[in-house]
Amino acid sequence: MKKNFSLSGMPDFNTLQIKRREFLISIIKKKFQSFGFKPIATSLIEKRDNLFGSYGTDGDKLIYQIVRSGDYLNKLNIDFQNINYNELSQNICDKALRYDLTIPFARFIASNQADINFPFKRYEVGSVFRADRPQKGRFRQFTQCDADIIGSNSLWLEIELINLIDSVISEFGLNDLTIKINNRKILEGVFESFSSNLDFSNFCIILDKLDKIGFNGVRQLFLTNGFVNNDLDLLCNLFELNGSFLDKKEFLLSKFKINSNLEKGLNELSFIFNKINIETIKQNIEIDFSLARGLDYYTGTIFELVTSNFSGSLAGGGRYDQLTEKFDLKDLSGVGISFGLDRLCLLLEQSNLFPLDIDDNIDFVFLNFGDQEADVAQSYIIKLRDFSVSAELYPDKVKINKQMKYAHKRGAKFVVMIGEQEMKQSKMLVKNMSTGEQQVLTFKELINTL
Amino acid sequence: MKKNFSLSGMPDFNTLQIKRREFLISIIKKKFQSFGFKPIATSLIEKRDNLFGSYGTDGDKLIYQIVRSGDYLNKLNIDFQNINYNELSQNICDKALRYDLTIPFARFIASNQADINFPFKRYEVGSVFRADRPQKGRFRQFTQCDADIIGSNSLWLEIELINLIDSVISEFGLNDLTIKINNRKILEGVFESFSSNLDFSNFCIILDKLDKIGFNGVRQLFLTNGFVNNDLDLLCNLFELNGSFLDKKEFLLSKFKINSNLEKGLNELSFIFNKINIETIKQNIEIDFSLARGLDYYTGTIFELVTSNFSGSLAGGGRYDQLTEKFDLKDLSGVGISFGLDRLCLLLEQSNLFPLDIDDNIDFVFLNFGDQEADVAQSYIIKLRDFSVSAELYPDKVKINKQMKYAHKRGAKFVVMIGEQEMKQSKMLVKNMSTGEQQVLTFKELINTL
Repeated sequence: MKKNFSLSGMPDFNTLQIKRREFLISIIKKKFQSFGFKPIATSLIEKRDNLFGSYGTDGDKLIYQIVRSGDYLNKLNIDFQNINYNELSQNICDKALRYDLTIPFARFIASNQADINFPFKRYEVGSVFRADRPQKGRFRQFTQCDADIIGSNSLWLEIELINLIDSVISEFGLNDLTIKINNRKILEGVFESFSSNLDFSNFCIILDKLDKIGFNGVRQLFLTNGFVNNDLDLLCNLFELNGSFLDKKEFLLSKFKINSNLEKGLNELSFIFNKINIETIKQNIEIDFSLARGLDYYTGTIFELVTSNFSGSLAGGGRYDQLTEKFDLKDLSGVGISFGLDRLCLLLEQSNLFPLDIDDNIDFVFLNFGDQEADVAQSYIIKLRDFSVSAELYPDKVKINKQMKYAHKRGAKFVVMIGEQEMKQSKMLVKNMSTGEQQVLTFKELINTL
Repeated sequence: MKKNFSLSGMPDFNTLQIKRREFLISIIKKKFQSFGFKPIATSLIEKRDNLFGSYGTDGDKLIYQIVRSGDYLNKLNIDFQNINYNELSQNICDKALRYDLTIPFARFIASNQADINFPFKRYEVGSVFRADRPQKGRFRQFTQCDADIIGSNSLWLEIELINLIDSVISEFGLNDLTIKINNRKILEGVFESFSSNLDFSNFCIILDKLDKIGFNGVRQLFLTNGFVNNDLDLLCNLFELNGSFLDKKEFLLSKFKINSNLEKGLNELSFIFNKINIETIKQNIEIDFSLARGLDYYTGTIFELVTSNFSGSLAGGGRYDQLTEKFDLKDLSGVGISFGLDRLCLLLEQSNLFPLDIDDNIDFVFLNFGDQEADVAQSYIIKLRDFSVSAELYPDKVKINKQMKYAHKRGAKFVVMIGEQEMKQSKMLVKNMSTGEQQVLTFKELINTL
């Protein structure tokens, strides 16, 4: 059997894939910039302690940890007989690969607070890493495109982000996607109305499994954690409710005992639904009280972008009030969204929405008839490149057939032949590879056709 | 003391730094493409075994290793009392961060050989990781820009790469840099003429320390490895020799007993020096017989780009004949170069060569006078963005002073104020932030001034 040198879930990209990704990224960046976001980049590696505890217990397990450099055992004094792998990792790993771009952003803010003009709007496009089970649209190394604002709790920012998601997706030519919205305070209010053995973080982690295991699966998990059937029926009704925001708000107010979290959450959602310019939004907007999102750090509005053609979310985000506290910086509320580039690529491929003229063709391939001829070819090639065209010499003096085959596969627009005859006349034979037409030209004549 | 949450040698980049890096990358990519290179991207993580043994013994120590996911101790049966850290790492780490872009490229070739049109020219721009001591111009996470051709042993490719280095550097506006050239076969021939306890790989690793510890330091290392003083004197003379390629070749032929490696190496260099179009090269070219390069995989020509203003190389590369053998793919010679983006950035900064108009200004900041006014502002902002300008609403209704200060620091070109008065008249007060001029305009009038 052939040995496999590649890692599962860690993708390489060929030229077409790169060009398509760059096409998407350029649209996303253009939109981010038009909304006033500025690029920054954070390091791919973080201190291990920066990451652990930020993503819930399930998240911690998915963090890739890096062992210390040098003789890390030398400095250690541990009882190897009784240690488990978690404790060992904690002792011998001091770094980890970033799991998202949000915690690194919070660290960036804390490190650079003196130079930052708040409220601060940044974007970042970069790789993140999760030791998850790979499947379609889920890699272990994947690219996120994030836009966040930190230093303001204005709900106008939520509205900006909804506009931004809509604007990016519509520019891609995608239609009929749904931006789901919820608020963690409402979830917390609902959670408080029931009694269970769970804390709120784990309540959200279980809810976040809804699209994978369905409400019956989630129901089972809740039952084993002390929920009662009546409460779960009510929860199910709440989640399955159709209708407008006002209908859903009405249901909540009539069936649940109002507490301060429910009230705050509903007020926040009301502001957003009052103020958002709904006629300018091209995709669908939907309140979904079952939306939880798995990450621990959200405290207010949460969003997710979904489509019926595709399982899993294409973008997601929300508001976090305490994110920078981890880095000793208090009272900075933030809100952000993250597009999953790899899934967007898959969806655009499925939908045939990539431009057809994305190619990797070369303009000129000069065939190699020997060292003397190649010498002349080289001097033309160097000059041609100054005219913003791409040109190369076939490196080996092999059979012309083989060289032509290479040029053809390469998508060359023109093949140039300079043999003994052409060299004497200071001319070249230029073949147009799409028409098949051949012309004998001087270099000057060739330039004039460009 | 303030806690430091950042890792040494793992840089973040602010907006200006990003814009400058993107400026350099766009030039490098444009040049790569004009030479016929196509973009690919390889994963940032490799199987551990793919990397170890490729970079010499010193290189292996600098590789960042990632521990297995899940309970890795459960599957292990090792005697912890007598294990050293190297053996432990080997047992519990299955992945590592890429150390360069060359080995991942070789793996990519092996994985995708059926789809590749040889000779294959690819470029890649990406992060690599080395657990080295950080210092000016040397990070632990840094960005390389590589161009390689695999599947041909034509020396025309060496000439192409020298032209490429020259072309990129000259486009940056840099002058008087030196492209140093040598050939590993010549070094191997020289090495064979002496007797020592070293193997050739370690001979090169020691030579590679020349610019850090000088010839006296290198001499000491050679002496302790069995070299005799006479041989070292000769080596010193060879390295210190000034003059043209022909002078240096003459010296080699007169002082060393010719062996097959010396002869092959000299022939290869002769071809390059005969065929390169020296009058089109803007930087300096120099044969430097002391150039070794630390990486194990080079077998022929090696290059390095250096400048007297800066220690360490700005670009480097060479030919490798057996690189893909590690991945069960034989008889594919390759040659490539790698630009160090971080060092190029430093050099361009030192030389004041970045364009001055690289900025992160926003076109319009709309001040926030309250929810009703913001509502109106929002509708204009959404329309403005369609005109390829950037616009944002200040999110909070705080003192106008504070909002103006933000807009000023933000480099806003225009500040737009819509208060009660303006709202009634369906107009806005637009302040040009560079001239201080203020105008009351309708939205249509504003659009007409764009």
